[in-house]
Amino acid sequence: MTVHFALDPRLEADTHAIGDLPLSQLLLMDDARFPWLILVPRIAGARELIDLDEADQRTLLGELNLVGRALETLLRPDKLNVAALGNVVPQLHVHLIARFAGDSAWPQPIWGQGDRVVYTESARLSRIAELRAALHAGLA
Amino acid sequence: MTVHFALDPRLEADTHAIGDLPLSQLLLMDDARFPWLILVPRIAGARELIDLDEADQRTLLGELNLVGRALETLLRPDKLNVAALGNVVPQLHVHLIARFAGDSAWPQPIWGQGDRVVYTESARLSRIAELRAALHAGLA
Repeated sequence: MTVHFALDPRLEADTHAIGDLPLSQLLLMDDARFPWLILVPRIAGARELIDLDEADQRTLLGELNLVGRALETLLRPDKLNVAALGNVVPQLHVHLIARFAGDSAWPQPIWGQGDRVVYTESARLSRIAELRAALHAGLA
Repeated sequence: MTVHFALDPRLEADTHAIGDLPLSQLLLMDDARFPWLILVPRIAGARELIDLDEADQRTLLGELNLVGRALETLLRPDKLNVAALGNVVPQLHVHLIARFAGDSAWPQPIWGQGDRVVYTESARLSRIAELRAALHAGLA
């Protein structure tokens, strides 16, 4: 039986698609408090970063570099937070969050801090458009 | 002026050395609630994962694999948590934590959850010894 990749329904419910990178789906967490992206490698059954083979790990690392640099270019954050946790959603996914001194969770990590504030439609579309433009510039 | 690497004093105060990998210092967080390791690449001034050059990124990834697999072999955790945050201590350091359903923070991330419980000396020495043995087995 072939097992096909499918995005975990909880990730799907909480995010909006930005686009597909060679290995990963790139998602925007629907939380206007933080510029919060999630990369999900399209590998069926993947749970742990260290379970990926070396080629996939390197591809994922390259995608983290691309997306992290796009966030830095676009937003000039004080810090990037990068994390693969998966205690609640075990499907392998990597958080990449642009953090600012003075954001509503600073200096704590963002998980479990207060309630999500969903984007307005215009703010969401604007954020996705600027991220896509920064990613394309990074690919060029 | 050459800038030499020096471990951040806050990391030094909260951890015990396990040993030196080719790129990184490997530290045990002094918190008996969680098997919590920290890798600190010995690169002066490094702050962000994505600032490392490609060779150092790959070396760090290899070290994460080695240490993660040692934790899995030794402890059979339900999940590994891997994170580079750095909001409080900006020196680049990567957390690698073995998580268990039912540990005192589960399923939340461990940061900011209650107070650290320092190891007894014998528990700490025993943990460091078993980790070193698992790492040596992984290198063999």
